Amino acid sequence: MSRLLILLAAAALTAPLAAAPASAQSVDRVAVNGILDQGLNHSQVMQTAAYLTDNIGGRMTNSPAMREAEAWTQQRFRDWGLSNVRTEGFEFGRGWSIVRSSARMTEPRVIDLRAIPIAWTPGTNGTITAGVVVAPMTRVADFDRYRGQLRGKIVLVTQPNTGSEPAEAPFLRLTDEQLRSGNVYPQPQYSPAAIERQLDAPNFAVALDDFLAQEGALALVRMSARDGGLLHGTGSGFRVGQTPKVPGMELAAEDYRRLARLARTDTPPTLELMSEVQFHDDDINAYNVLADIPGTDRSGEYVMAGAHLDSWVASDGASDNAAGSAVVMEAARILRELGVRPKRTIRFALWNGEEQGLWGSLAYVDQHLATRAPSTDPRLAGQPNNRTWRNRWPIQPREGHGDLVAYFNLDNGSGKIRGINAEGNVAAVPIFQEWLAPFASLGASTVSLRTSGGTDHVYMQTVGIPGYQFIQDPLDYNSRIHHTSIDSYDHLKADDLRQAAVILASFLLNAANRDQPLPRMPIPTQPTPSDPFEYLPAE
Amino acid sequence: MSRLLILLAAAALTAPLAAAPASAQSVDRVAVNGILDQGLNHSQVMQTAAYLTDNIGGRMTNSPAMREAEAWTQQRFRDWGLSNVRTEGFEFGRGWSIVRSSARMTEPRVIDLRAIPIAWTPGTNGTITAGVVVAPMTRVADFDRYRGQLRGKIVLVTQPNTGSEPAEAPFLRLTDEQLRSGNVYPQPQYSPAAIERQLDAPNFAVALDDFLAQEGALALVRMSARDGGLLHGTGSGFRVGQTPKVPGMELAAEDYRRLARLARTDTPPTLELMSEVQFHDDDINAYNVLADIPGTDRSGEYVMAGAHLDSWVASDGASDNAAGSAVVMEAARILRELGVRPKRTIRFALWNGEEQGLWGSLAYVDQHLATRAPSTDPRLAGQPNNRTWRNRWPIQPREGHGDLVAYFNLDNGSGKIRGINAEGNVAAVPIFQEWLAPFASLGASTVSLRTSGGTDHVYMQTVGIPGYQFIQDPLDYNSRIHHTSIDSYDHLKADDLRQAAVILASFLLNAANRDQPLPRMPIPTQPTPSDPFEYLPAE
Repeated sequence: MSRLLILLAAAALTAPLAAAPASAQSVDRVAVNGILDQGLNHSQVMQTAAYLTDNIGGRMTNSPAMREAEAWTQQRFRDWGLSNVRTEGFEFGRGWSIVRSSARMTEPRVIDLRAIPIAWTPGTNGTITAGVVVAPMTRVADFDRYRGQLRGKIVLVTQPNTGSEPAEAPFLRLTDEQLRSGNVYPQPQYSPAAIERQLDAPNFAVALDDFLAQEGALALVRMSARDGGLLHGTGSGFRVGQTPKVPGMELAAEDYRRLARLARTDTPPTLELMSEVQFHDDDINAYNVLADIPGTDRSGEYVMAGAHLDSWVASDGASDNAAGSAVVMEAARILRELGVRPKRTIRFALWNGEEQGLWGSLAYVDQHLATRAPSTDPRLAGQPNNRTWRNRWPIQPREGHGDLVAYFNLDNGSGKIRGINAEGNVAAVPIFQEWLAPFASLGASTVSLRTSGGTDHVYMQTVGIPGYQFIQDPLDYNSRIHHTSIDSYDHLKADDLRQAAVILASFLLNAANRDQPLPRMPIPTQPTPSDPFEYLPAE
Repeated sequence: MSRLLILLAAAALTAPLAAAPASAQSVDRVAVNGILDQGLNHSQVMQTAAYLTDNIGGRMTNSPAMREAEAWTQQRFRDWGLSNVRTEGFEFGRGWSIVRSSARMTEPRVIDLRAIPIAWTPGTNGTITAGVVVAPMTRVADFDRYRGQLRGKIVLVTQPNTGSEPAEAPFLRLTDEQLRSGNVYPQPQYSPAAIERQLDAPNFAVALDDFLAQEGALALVRMSARDGGLLHGTGSGFRVGQTPKVPGMELAAEDYRRLARLARTDTPPTLELMSEVQFHDDDINAYNVLADIPGTDRSGEYVMAGAHLDSWVASDGASDNAAGSAVVMEAARILRELGVRPKRTIRFALWNGEEQGLWGSLAYVDQHLATRAPSTDPRLAGQPNNRTWRNRWPIQPREGHGDLVAYFNLDNGSGKIRGINAEGNVAAVPIFQEWLAPFASLGASTVSLRTSGGTDHVYMQTVGIPGYQFIQDPLDYNSRIHHTSIDSYDHLKADDLRQAAVILASFLLNAANRDQPLPRMPIPTQPTPSDPFEYLPAE
């Protein structure tokens, strides 16, 4: 190979995935140096994360811990000199918290089991001791099989399985190839079956609770969806008047399977369950926490970063999402510490009720950005806002719709930022490439057109607000951390969170100071079109 | 590529690693067909494993559960028509079992923790509520740092760390390359430092217990050596008169680290510990279970298969080692069901006290095969047999030394047999290759010269008895199962255990019926020689 060819090959191997055109005008690199120094050498991000996780712990919406987190984060924003530190409330439902719980098999032998109360289920009012019935139910049609067999029993409602065979490494960082292959433009997807399933899901949980109560079951036990002894405890029924009637607990998969197997022997198990929980009804509103660095140009335009502060409670809600919250707060601290005076206002948002369906960010959208017409679909009658939102037309922009020029979300665990999803906005791509350019050596250089879902920028996207989410290294978020009993501070990565705070701060400053407008997408005017020859799925 | 080259290349790709010469004489393949049918189509191995794990559960030596297992396995052997079903006792120590336990943090907030009592430590006699002191201690020299600070405290004795980053798949099967590269002849290793460490280890546990008791500590808490919420609870101090004085519990790594972090804040944690345990002193002897299929030639020669029946109790001792025990029992059942009448006796052994240092198999060696001279080394005075064994010379073969012509051990979890370790016996290699030949399509074809350690064939090897261990797929044994709180039945693999039982049965029959003697190794006559110019390690 000639020397020239070697050089060309070497260049190809080391070229960034989405090469950022050098553009000295658009990024103030002296400001980036300041952000890097403040964010890496004077970081507070791990202190913030530690307080949210170790001291406050799991932060279920409207629980005392979440109230404490709402107060503490506001105080931190005030300590750092943010402006307009405030909460904005929205109706959510009952608070719920665990006091203590335990589970134990006493026949045919004695063994402590790993269990957690299912969120928003009532406690057991002391210890329940009873035999079990294995009655896997996923549809109302399953009820008939078990009718008349559940009185006085603890009902195991999940189909047991066997041990997993995890053939992938639990802890992952994105490879160049993965970053590259993720850059796929999002074609619209028409999925009527998904809508049906969405509308049915909560109904089944309610129907199952009704059925178990009518049949006189003492408690519901489900199997953890992950094995290895991990627990989750996620649940629903938080709306006032919708509290489940039957106590529910999730058991570690290994413990659940053992019970289910023994139930088939001539020495069936006896189970002791104890769940002591509290409901908190003093205020059924949940509160987003907001804080600003005011802009200088008084146009009303602002940029915003957000992360949800609420969590589940099997552990301390560290990667989901004290991590993102601490990074958003740290970006605020960094920019305040540097004394920046941005043209546009920079707003920091800590959302609430995310885990139950993005309630907090949707409330913000609905109150400030756009609302939608009432539904005419009778299937949607009585459903909460977040369940009907996508199916109500037309979108009605509010006065502030044009003011929010860009929103940046963080909610994918503790992994460092590797780039950003432009969410189909091709005009944003070259801008983000410029903004990322200083951070290539910190591992962040990819701008992908793909969309991401499941968190607080998606309702903004539904109404044409430019909401983006960063691409992060997955680490062990999906394999073992997300919503589990080991989502604790010790699985956070300090280097990664410091890096993320620096990049977020820089993005916010760039967005706030950019002379030209930031590119927006057209406001949607109709549902995703179906293929005219597409048949509804048979199911 | 020519057709011939293609054929040659294909042959190279599919050739077994250690090609077995076809030898119709040495393996009765009609008998193998019978074993395959009985072991695959009429298998009982999972029923056996289920009873040992689900019904009996964790089987700590001399605990009531292990007593039950000793009785139940004998009964099964009798049900299947084995002969001379019996136990052989040896002095072990106290039985110990867990009744219930719990751990909870109550300050600065309330959260249930995952904990298990450390084996053979006393219970807490109700609930202990106290503050913690983080006092990592690994040497007696560490005690001074904490003297005077531990009274009335719960002492966290492990150095906390941060979350693991598991970058390997937890569930593994051996690749051809791994099987190939494992075939390494075992050069003798001289390691005086290892001997020193072995002699020091139990002394430190005793010294730490003494120190904590003198200082008035309420309890010892250690961190789990694996994170992800897994627990182990392994411990020592089972000898009569050596019971620890201070209650001890192991906490999940995530829970331990949280306590250790909070201990550094201005809101240090308060911990509630409750451990209710029982000691069982009615019989300090432990018992190996033995059963025979008598040989027809009355020479006194026998072949033997063994696995340890005892386990730890964080879960049900499934992969370690109900799996191996069930396979050994299943091989017995298969051979009895087929009505084989072997020339040499086939003996089945379920060892006891393996987890505390191979006590059961060593007792068998000492009683039946060979003993060793008393020690003249004052450092070994008062040490139990298994701690001094390797350092006492000469070896004194017993009358039965020559009778045991081959011993096959199973103790590496639930993974299928991929081959066998010939333990340096080059004369055994071609024989094992012949015996494995019928099982290549079941995944077993490797004969490796490597040695394996840590289980019940090693003391046989120390006195020149041909003891072998099979090579098994690791599955998730090392990553998450071994000694942990998820070592339960559901992580066993039925296909793998059936395969192992078939191969073991076939090996036993081949060894019992072989016309020629089975090759033995020379009896060791001196310690592993040191390099004459080797210096002792500095540590």
